[in-house]
Amino acid sequence: MAIKKLGKQTVKLENPPSIISYYSIVGPKEGKGPLKDYFDLILEDDLWGQESWEKAESKMQEECIKAAIDKAGLSSQDIDYLIAGDLLNQIIATAYSARQLAIPYYGLYGACSTMTESLSLGAMLVDGGFADKVACAVSSHFSTAERQFRYPLEYGNQRKMSAQWTVTGAGATILSSYGSGPYVKCITTGKIIDPGITDVANMGGAMAPAAVDTLVTHFQDTGLDPSYYDLIISGDLGYVGKSIVLDLMKEKGYDLTKNYTDCGVEIFDKSEQDTHAGGSGCACSATVYNSYVFKEMAKGKLNKVLIMSTGALHSTLSTQQGESIPGIAHAVAVENTIE
Amino acid sequence: MAIKKLGKQTVKLENPPSIISYYSIVGPKEGKGPLKDYFDLILEDDLWGQESWEKAESKMQEECIKAAIDKAGLSSQDIDYLIAGDLLNQIIATAYSARQLAIPYYGLYGACSTMTESLSLGAMLVDGGFADKVACAVSSHFSTAERQFRYPLEYGNQRKMSAQWTVTGAGATILSSYGSGPYVKCITTGKIIDPGITDVANMGGAMAPAAVDTLVTHFQDTGLDPSYYDLIISGDLGYVGKSIVLDLMKEKGYDLTKNYTDCGVEIFDKSEQDTHAGGSGCACSATVYNSYVFKEMAKGKLNKVLIMSTGALHSTLSTQQGESIPGIAHAVAVENTIE
Repeated sequence: MAIKKLGKQTVKLENPPSIISYYSIVGPKEGKGPLKDYFDLILEDDLWGQESWEKAESKMQEECIKAAIDKAGLSSQDIDYLIAGDLLNQIIATAYSARQLAIPYYGLYGACSTMTESLSLGAMLVDGGFADKVACAVSSHFSTAERQFRYPLEYGNQRKMSAQWTVTGAGATILSSYGSGPYVKCITTGKIIDPGITDVANMGGAMAPAAVDTLVTHFQDTGLDPSYYDLIISGDLGYVGKSIVLDLMKEKGYDLTKNYTDCGVEIFDKSEQDTHAGGSGCACSATVYNSYVFKEMAKGKLNKVLIMSTGALHSTLSTQQGESIPGIAHAVAVENTIE
Repeated sequence: MAIKKLGKQTVKLENPPSIISYYSIVGPKEGKGPLKDYFDLILEDDLWGQESWEKAESKMQEECIKAAIDKAGLSSQDIDYLIAGDLLNQIIATAYSARQLAIPYYGLYGACSTMTESLSLGAMLVDGGFADKVACAVSSHFSTAERQFRYPLEYGNQRKMSAQWTVTGAGATILSSYGSGPYVKCITTGKIIDPGITDVANMGGAMAPAAVDTLVTHFQDTGLDPSYYDLIISGDLGYVGKSIVLDLMKEKGYDLTKNYTDCGVEIFDKSEQDTHAGGSGCACSATVYNSYVFKEMAKGKLNKVLIMSTGALHSTLSTQQGESIPGIAHAVAVENTIE
């Protein structure tokens, strides 16, 4: 069989899988932000009737996947694989979500890059003929992430201006070999790039070089110019990371000023919501893709979009041992037409 | 494209990828066990010159992947994807290993099922034409796992007889679209099964029902009888889990008494090494497959082997919140001939 690779890190799908369904659930804060009209379900309470935030996060992911499957007129028995992850130790929100769904399951850990990691693997399994339908999903929760990665919430620490606000929410996408688009056209898988940043309140800076590496590789591998896309949208670089990407891409000869933004910049209102450098978390990109991006594509207002979730592959375990924060970014080209 | 599925959870590869290289590194204790002559590298010191056990684990994984690539006469630039994971929070051993290798990277978390999760995804990416060569790898370390999941090592807690001993080691396999075998013939992807066990010192009991579910599904989907295989070998069920599997499979009408064992049973000497219920950890199955199993296949002493890593998807986070331990198992059929 011919290798479907374009250049060194990009594959072009032969029979591009369709995004046949998607769903997003967000917490109360996200539900007051600029994208509030796009989300499918806005929770009034980030515990959602559960005993802990971790259990609430797991419920969000489970209900989001169920809703996406339901919206496609399918049942969980119709789904060949669930490919999912989250930020918690041992991706425990996903384990308990997947337990309830009884779908053959692959767990991922890509930090906040997990949504496009999942879409990349899911699309290849569909295109390769191994699956007819795949569910791709992630979740994150401000309160579970904050107490795991940073400080107890009760401590009320002061947040640096470069710090980001973990999005409370879940996003799910159903890919199928049959459908009328939008289609996953091509995938550029990222390598780890570590700029040596050790400040866990500067994720944007830690992830931006990986985002630039994946973007440059994508344009080199495909021969496309950034202007080919109606929108290029990264996952959770926030204000700090976005400005680094614009600068570094300009240095490399690519103008992203007209059609590039970041989900972390779009999801909160900078002046009113006090989220400093913007949103972050697996669910930051997942809820924006599975609401704003895919809904605008359905309206035909966007037709060619490059989505690229970005991950900071750190842990309290590694930062306590003096290690820097490695970054990664996976890009997925989604288009309304096959040609 | 025709769906390559056999039954509900199994895929048959059209152009079965070859295992063109494999490597195993183990710690001193494993190097004194019954399989000592099969391992490629036995460390004299489980810190391996590093400042922490976590850094030592990461080095083990990195060096293992490099050695497997080197043994195939390749360089890291020849590898299309690295698909890897470990047990640490945020799979940090893998993140730092992958950072050094600069290969497009997908991180997995499947607890101790990760080796066959990685081989499953890797084989599908090769068979689907998305990659020519994929590196699949995992690591675990007794001292990193013990202090993360259980007690500080200095505490010297008494271990229950059902407790297992996390294997210190790493295993790596290189899959390729070209090669003369052994071949990955088919893959049965597991669903999460949770028997409700909350005792973290009884992983074998927590995982055995998932192993049984995957085995029964594999035989139903393929129409094969257990006697088809020269060896069926699960990941790290240990003595407790192995005996449950034998019993439950017998109840379901499958006789596994002649050709079934578990890597956790084989890797340590029960009477001399004081490991209670046997070995566990991602590296338990990974080091046994990438040494004993594949070397015996190379000699032609084994020709048809069903390998099945098993995972207990728990976390201190979930056990502290009263949750039970979900299990999962992924089976991969490896055979010396294509037909």
